[in-house]
Parts: sequence; structure tokens; C-alpha cells
Amino acid sequence: MTLALDQLHGSLSDPLLDAMTFLNEVTARYPDAVSFAPGRPHEEHFDPAAIPRHLERYLRHLREDRGMAEEEVRRELFQYGRTKGLIAGLVARTLAADEGLDVDPEALVVTVGAQEGMLLVLRALCAGPEDVLLVAAPCYVGVTGAARLLDLTVRPVPEAPGGGGLDPEALAAAARRARAEGLRPRACYLVPDFANPSGASLPVEARKRLLAVAEEHDLLLVEDNPYGFFRRGGTPVRPTLKALDGDRRRVVHLGSFAKTCFPGARVGYVVADQRVDRGGGRAGLLADELAKLKSMTTVNTPALSQAVIGGMLLEADRGLRVATAGAAEFYARNLDTLLAELERRFPPGSPVTWNAPDGGYFAVLTVPFDADERALDRCAREYGVLWTPMAPFYPHGGGERSLRLSCSYLTEDRIVDGVGRLAAFVDGASR
Amino acid sequence: MTLALDQLHGSLSDPLLDAMTFLNEVTARYPDAVSFAPGRPHEEHFDPAAIPRHLERYLRHLREDRGMAEEEVRRELFQYGRTKGLIAGLVARTLAADEGLDVDPEALVVTVGAQEGMLLVLRALCAGPEDVLLVAAPCYVGVTGAARLLDLTVRPVPEAPGGGGLDPEALAAAARRARAEGLRPRACYLVPDFANPSGASLPVEARKRLLAVAEEHDLLLVEDNPYGFFRRGGTPVRPTLKALDGDRRRVVHLGSFAKTCFPGARVGYVVADQRVDRGGGRAGLLADELAKLKSMTTVNTPALSQAVIGGMLLEADRGLRVATAGAAEFYARNLDTLLAELERRFPPGSPVTWNAPDGGYFAVLTVPFDADERALDRCAREYGVLWTPMAPFYPHGGGERSLRLSCSYLTEDRIVDGVGRLAAFVDGASR
Repeated sequence: MTLALDQLHGSLSDPLLDAMTFLNEVTARYPDAVSFAPGRPHEEHFDPAAIPRHLERYLRHLREDRGMAEEEVRRELFQYGRTKGLIAGLVARTLAADEGLDVDPEALVVTVGAQEGMLLVLRALCAGPEDVLLVAAPCYVGVTGAARLLDLTVRPVPEAPGGGGLDPEALAAAARRARAEGLRPRACYLVPDFANPSGASLPVEARKRLLAVAEEHDLLLVEDNPYGFFRRGGTPVRPTLKALDGDRRRVVHLGSFAKTCFPGARVGYVVADQRVDRGGGRAGLLADELAKLKSMTTVNTPALSQAVIGGMLLEADRGLRVATAGAAEFYARNLDTLLAELERRFPPGSPVTWNAPDGGYFAVLTVPFDADERALDRCAREYGVLWTPMAPFYPHGGGERSLRLSCSYLTEDRIVDGVGRLAAFVDGASR
Repeated sequence: MTLALDQLHGSLSDPLLDAMTFLNEVTARYPDAVSFAPGRPHEEHFDPAAIPRHLERYLRHLREDRGMAEEEVRRELFQYGRTKGLIAGLVARTLAADEGLDVDPEALVVTVGAQEGMLLVLRALCAGPEDVLLVAAPCYVGVTGAARLLDLTVRPVPEAPGGGGLDPEALAAAARRARAEGLRPRACYLVPDFANPSGASLPVEARKRLLAVAEEHDLLLVEDNPYGFFRRGGTPVRPTLKALDGDRRRVVHLGSFAKTCFPGARVGYVVADQRVDRGGGRAGLLADELAKLKSMTTVNTPALSQAVIGGMLLEADRGLRVATAGAAEFYARNLDTLLAELERRFPPGSPVTWNAPDGGYFAVLTVPFDADERALDRCAREYGVLWTPMAPFYPHGGGERSLRLSCSYLTEDRIVDGVGRLAAFVDGASR
């Protein structure tokens, strides 16, 4: 039997997904290229022998700290379990140590990566076509992709010029515009620290203003924080939106252990402490509603993954910020090297410009030609270097002459080599 | 901030989800009751010490059979990986041994339980409100729940009277009716062996007729097979729809390792070998389209879970049917006991009837009163026994006086005790 693409769900013919597929294909086609493409953590500390140790640490916690009998330990690890997750208490402890957040474990849902959390939050908040999801533009494709899967209405909110991240006044304007059209803006998604893909961060004052705008326009802010620990030297630790929000509960906070522990566990979480009025005097938490949806997406986050991440959180008893200090230094050094090499290879007077993020995995380069799939393919084939076109990150156009450079997965040598190759390509393409 | 339930997605106010929540709550409220409620595997063979062994077995396979360098092994286990999964080859080998299926590993997607596979298949096949999903009635709530999350149009197809499972002629009638209304029936979901919740199985002739009906009405059959190995004595091994379908590719086959390995891994799979015409002479497999959707739900199935299940599949080198023979005997004995106790406690002349499935976890009891939430609560409180009301399994009404009994998670003693308590409750409620 053959199915026609136009008989399948519209997301499957969306250029966004084709762009993702192309990127995967081109990366697979040029395995030896210097790749500034993937937003992957470095692998230096990965050790298969550590897995049984983390698992054992978690099981010991169940037996000793939580007083579970052997039968209960077995059930916890092997059976279906609590939909909201097994390690909510450990995640809450970690959030207290790392971000000063006081999170009720009942307000947490442990998810299969932050991606599942995102899908659940979007599904819960957007009930129909009149509901609008606002997103920082440029925006992580996992979010616009999840919205596409659910046929949601999405509107972009441009980041502020100058690398300051999402512009609070632009958010207010977008919310007003949506309301004027008879739509209901529900939430705005953003990465306040070292955003994917732009690298931009919100100053503390802008965070406060953003919370005021959310209050004024009755929006939730969906804060995603995968890179927050990875600051360059001299960059201050900025409070999360969730921490600044206090008891107002305007912020749904998404987290991921993909960058701080490892991606292959696929463990993330949502803090959703908003109260839900169920009518008839009954009330619950948004986390409980998300759990109901989760029972229709993955039923449970694998107990096995939660146990191993749980063991890592127990080992990191002073929090993950401390435990990942070495990784943070590695990323900061790589970003320094990337920026220094860009300076060296594109001296003053060059038509090429870039931003200088103060942390994270990414920087954005702007070039005097279309940085599209054709350009990428030629760059990979002739110059042996890969990057990510920025255009797919703009849900409504933009970024055609920009490209994202990720430096998290490379060594310093490879970065130096790669920027040299990239400069040769750009010089050729600009002429 | 407080959210009103009616501002959230409609699935969250659906009685179906409330019913699931109630069931969870009542089960938690009466932890000492004899529970015929959960469709869980028994725990006899679960051993935390086996996890590192399975993991090590898989890593050895990567090193020795697949010749991976240590760096590649590390990457496989810890990093983001192939969206369609890491263990597709091992799953294909297992399907060949267990079901005589010749599956191209490229046509497989390894998912976070069969539940994610279901969600992906429904999303891919149902593009808009004119697309209809047909489901066997009664139907597993994970399917109707996933359809609700995606706002899909669902129509029930009644099972044949007499325990023969989905009625092929009823499917043909439902497809015709949908077309007459200007709708497009896309697929029909069913569990051909020992269905959840009815326990019914399709005779081989009905399977063949079902395939013919699917061909005639241009439908896909979505076959879910979690319980197929668990036959009572004397029950023949029946070929799956996928095996009978041969090269016609009318069947999307869903599988789960929750019952044959363990639920806490959350590993399932979809066989989706349908060709997709992408226009312009390009073609692919439905599995590739599902993988694109998966990148928006969970990105990857946890490598850790896949590695442990991979190790179990390597250890079970003659297939899981052989490896689970002991479990199959256990379940068959429990079902025999359940049915014998029902005979004993409800002698001829009793208004209570039940079916006698020839395998699986479930049987259905019909009583002369409404087996609803109130009845369940009273039965739990006063008689110390739990079961599952059948009504929520009927997407468009039905089953009000039936209840599901699951015998997979109990010992024989508990079953004997539980049926006695149940009989006392039923006798009281029938008067």
C-alpha cells in the first residue's frame, strides 16, 4: 500500500520538518566535516561503567533514605509507576540548590526530555484555534514543531536588537494584536539564558518587565532553561523567571538533564504550580493536568532513566551547577575560542558580523548571501564544515542570511580549523 | 495564577480522563484490597541486579558483533541518537523468531512504549476532522485517549458477539457509513489476541476477512499485540494480521516490551512499512514520517532503556516467546483459576455471566446492576476488592453493567480470595 504525503498530517509536508530532515541527512553525508551543527553536549565525561554505579546509588536511596522493602524497590524500578514521576523530590532538591527555587514536588512532572514537557504544556494551554502561542523569534524548532503537530496557532515575538533576548514591549504588542484579532494569547515560550538558536540572554530588568507584561496581558511565560549553567567568565548568574516570579505562578518552568547529565537518559521536567479550578469547589495543580495528558503520550517516563538520573542527582548533592562546573569551563573556553577565531578570520571591514553570547552553546553569524540548504551543502562538500541555517528557526520568515554555530561538541583545535574553513567558504561565497 | 478547566484543552474535561483518574485514586485509597484492576505483569522475575548484566550484554554486542570503537559505544549510550531507534535490528530478529515476520529494520520505529507509537500513528494518518479513526469497541483507553488529545474523530466498531473479537462485517459497515457521511475512514485499531479489555481473540478466518475488508475500503489496520504470547493450554498460536498480510502492507503493527520484558523500560515499537509518495518521484516509508513526528514528542527513545531491552533480546536468542514461556504458564494458570472460581461462586442460574478468554490478562463479568464508580467504591470499601468498570472502554456508550477482571498481577490464593469477596459484593448488590 502506498500513502500520498498530502493525505497525511500537514506537519509532515511542512518545510520546517523537511529542513530538519535535510540537516540530519547532510550531517550523515559528511561525517568527517568539522560540525558546528549539533547542539550536543561534549562526551569527555561519559563512562558506561558509571551507569550501574548511579543505578545502585538510587536503589540505596530507596532502601536506606526512603525505607523501602526489597519488593517495593523492585516494583519502583520495573513496573508502571507514578505518572508525574519517581524522582520529583530529588529534582526539587536540585532546583533549590541550583536556582534557589522552592518547588513543591507535587507541582513537578518528570518527562521524556524537555520536549515531551513542551508538548504537554502546549496541549494543555491551547484548547482551540483561537488560542495563540507566542514564541521568541528565532525559536527552538522543537517548540514550533510540537505546535505544528498539534495544529496550534503560533505568533512570533522578535528578540530585542543587540542580543538582549525577547523584547518585553514586543511581547506586549503581540498580545495586544492577537486580542484585537479576537484571539486569545495564552503563553509565550522563551529561553532566557543563552537561547537556542540566538545565544541571547535577557537582562534581569527585562525579566522583571516580562513578568509585568505577562501579568498585564494574562499570559503564562513558558521558560526553558537547558543551558543556564554554562556562563562565560565574568557573566553574572541571573535569576530564572520562575525565581523572580515568586508566588504569582505566571511561569511554567521547563528543565532538562540532557546537557547537565546526559541526553541518552531523556529525562526532563516541568514545574507547573498553577492552580486549576475544576469547578464545584475542586482544585488541583496544572502538573496534575499535564500528567493526565502524559498518560496518553508515554504513560510514564522510563523508571530506568529516572533511577540513573536520580543516582546522579544524589551524587551531586551540592547541586548540578557545582557538579557541572568542569563542563561549564569547557564550553566557556570553546565559546571564547570560537569568538576569537571569528575576530581573527573576519577582520574589521569584513561584511560578516556575529554576536558574542556570554554563555551557552551557540553564536549566530550573519553573512552577505543566503545561508540556505544549497549553501550548506556546498560548504560541506567543498570546505568540509557544517553549520545550521537560521531561517527554519523563524516561524514567519527571517534569518535568511544568518547561520548558527554550535561549539559544544568540538575541541578547540577543531574550532580553530573549522572557523578557518568557514572563512574560506564565506569569502568565496561573498565574492 | 488560577486557570479555569474550561480554558484548557477539551481532553482534560473529558469523562474518559476523569474515569482514569478516579481509578488511580480508588486503587491508591485501598492498597490492601485484592486488585483485579491493573493490567500489570507479575513481578516474580524482576531483579535489579539483572539490569547491569543486560546493559553489559548490549555493550558487548556493540563492541564485538558490530565492531564499534569505545568512543562509538559511549556515544551510542549517552548521546542523542537515531530517531527511529538503536535496536531496530534486534527487534526485527525477535519478530522473525516469534512471529515469522520478515521486517526491514528501516521500517521500524522504537518508541517510548506502544503508547507513543499509537500517538504517532494516529497523528500521521489523521490529517483533519474529515479523517476517521475506527476502533474496536470496547477499546483500550490509551487509544481513545490519544485520539482525544489530538482532537480526532473516532467511531466504534463493535466486537462480534460470542468472544470472536472485532467483527469484520461491522468494520465494513462502519467504513461505508463514514464514507456516506463524507468522511474518510483511515484506519482501524484492534488487539487481535486476548484484547484489552474484552479478552476476545480473532479466529484466523476472521483475520483474513478483516484484511480483505481493509483492502476493499482502503483502510489500514493498526494491530496492537501486547499479550499474544500468553495463551491458555490448548489455544493455538494464531498468525498476526501483519504475518497474514504478506506484502500488501495494509497493517501497521504495534508492539510492546512492557509485558514480555518489563514496563519500567518503556520500550515499544511500530512496524510501518507502508510506502509514502512524497511527490517528485521521491518515496519513503511511513516509519520515516513517524520518526519526524517523534522528534517533536520525545526526540529519541532513551538509549539507556533500549540498551537494557537490547541486552534482554540478545539473551533471548530464540525469541521472546520461548523466553517468556514461564510467564505464559503463570498467566494461564491464573486465568484458569479465575474462571474456575467464577464457576464455583456463580453457579448455574446466577444472573452473573462472564466470558472465557483463551489467554491474556483479562476477562469480563456482566452483572445485573450498574458497575460504575459508585459500585466500585462500595465494593472496595466494604468487600476489599477492586476491578475496572467497562463503560469507559466504550467510546460511544455501552458496557454499563460489565466489569473487567485482570488476573496478571495476583497469586492464585489472592484470586480465590478475591472472587469470593467479589461474589459477596455482587450477591449483595443484585438483591
